[in-house]
Amino acid sequence: MINKDSPIPIYYQLEEKIKGQIEQGELKTGDMLPSEREYADRFEISRMTVRQAISKLVNDGYVYRKKGTGTFVAEKKIEQPLQGLTSFTEDMKTRGMKPSNRLIHFRVVPATSYTASALNIDEGAPVYEIQRIRLADGVPMALETNYLSESLNPRLTEEVVQSSLYDFIENKLNKKIGEATQIIESSIVTEKEMELLEVKKGSPVLIIERKTYLDDGTPLEVVKSAYRADRYRFMINMKRN
Amino acid sequence: MINKDSPIPIYYQLEEKIKGQIEQGELKTGDMLPSEREYADRFEISRMTVRQAISKLVNDGYVYRKKGTGTFVAEKKIEQPLQGLTSFTEDMKTRGMKPSNRLIHFRVVPATSYTASALNIDEGAPVYEIQRIRLADGVPMALETNYLSESLNPRLTEEVVQSSLYDFIENKLNKKIGEATQIIESSIVTEKEMELLEVKKGSPVLIIERKTYLDDGTPLEVVKSAYRADRYRFMINMKRN
Repeated sequence: MINKDSPIPIYYQLEEKIKGQIEQGELKTGDMLPSEREYADRFEISRMTVRQAISKLVNDGYVYRKKGTGTFVAEKKIEQPLQGLTSFTEDMKTRGMKPSNRLIHFRVVPATSYTASALNIDEGAPVYEIQRIRLADGVPMALETNYLSESLNPRLTEEVVQSSLYDFIENKLNKKIGEATQIIESSIVTEKEMELLEVKKGSPVLIIERKTYLDDGTPLEVVKSAYRADRYRFMINMKRN
Repeated sequence: MINKDSPIPIYYQLEEKIKGQIEQGELKTGDMLPSEREYADRFEISRMTVRQAISKLVNDGYVYRKKGTGTFVAEKKIEQPLQGLTSFTEDMKTRGMKPSNRLIHFRVVPATSYTASALNIDEGAPVYEIQRIRLADGVPMALETNYLSESLNPRLTEEVVQSSLYDFIENKLNKKIGEATQIIESSIVTEKEMELLEVKKGSPVLIIERKTYLDDGTPLEVVKSAYRADRYRFMINMKRN
C-alpha cells in the first residue's frame, strides 16, 4: 500500500492512493475521509505527511475541509472537451446538468481600444457589456463577461441573456456562428470573482478569452471568463502529425 | 483616454489602456512603467486606483515589480497552440527559442495503481520516473514528470532525456507516436514547484496531465506538468458544428 523503501515520497503515495479510491468510486462524493490520526496509525506514517497529502488533494479540488468536522470528498470536476465551439448552456445540458445564469449587469458602454480592435469597430462605439455568473445545478462555475457591438446585434435585452446567447444569435437574429479562437490561462481570483464565485481568497481560476466570429468572418463577440479551478477542467485529444 | 463618466471601472480602463500599449508595442519588454504618482497625476485619478490596475497587470504576467526600482514590462507569454501533439523541445524550436532541460531525477520506481492503470501494466511493475525542468532560452517554464514502462522502453538513459524524449522514442526506438489526451487545470504552485520554477509562493500554474499512446494504441507515457502561468498560455481554434 505505502512503500517506505520506495524513492516516491510517502505523502505522494498516500495522495495517489486516495485519488485512486475517489476515481474508482470506493470513496464517493460527500464521504468523510478518515482522520489524519487514522491515516497516520494505519500506515505508520507521521501526521505531517498525511496533512501534506490531504492539503494537496484540497488544492486540487478532490476533497474539501469543513471546519471542526472533517475532510469530505468533493464533487468531480466538470471535464469540458475543447472540441467544437459550444455555449455554456449547451455544455451543461449535454452532461445532464441544469444551466442557469445570474445577471450581474447588462449595459451599453463605449468600446475600449482593445474591445474595439477585437470587434473591428471604432473605439468608443457602443457595445453591450453582459456580465453573468454561469451556474450548473445552482453552483457558480464561472464569471463571464461578453462584449458585442450594439449596432450589429440589435434587440439584445436583459431577458434574452438570462438564457443562451448563442441560441438568440442563431435562432432569433438568424446569424451563423463560424468559429472562435480561445486563449486559456491560469490565474488567481480577483476580489470580485472571489465573492461572486463563492471561493476563498487566493483560489486558482482558469481564465478564458474567446473571440467568436460569424461564418462570414465578422467578429461577433469578445468573452472573458473566469472558471473555478476546483470545479472545472479542460480536456483535449491531440494527434501526432 | 480615461472616461470617468463611463460605467466601466476606472482601474479597468487604465489596465486595458496599459495592456493595449504593451500589445501594440508602445511599451516594450523591459521598459519601465510611469510611476503610480505619474499615472495618478496624468489621468487625475487616485493612486489606489492606479495600484489596483497595476496589481492586476502583475497578476496576469504583463508587468513585474522590482523592489525599490519600479514596474517593468514583462516578456510576452508563450502562446502554445493546442493543435497537434508536439514535444516541448519541438515547440520551443518552432518559435525560435533554445530549449534545454535540467534533470531533477531519473530513476526506476514501482508503478502506483494510478500509473499502472494508465500504462496498462501491473501495479508495482518498474517504470521510469523522469523529472525535468524545461527551460526556454534559459528560463524555467515547466516542471515535467514522465512515467514510462521500463520493459516496453528499454535503453532510456539519463543522457537521452537531456534532450527530446519524443525524438528518442521515434528515431532510436523506432516507435510511432499516435495521439494523446490532455487534461488542463489551474492550480497554485507546490513548494517544490515554487523553488524549481523560481516563482513566488501562491503563484498560479497550468497543470497538464497527458496520456500518450503509440499508433497501435499501446500506452506510451503519463506526463504531469506544471507550467508557469506568468510565462505560458494555451491557444485553440474551435469550429461551430
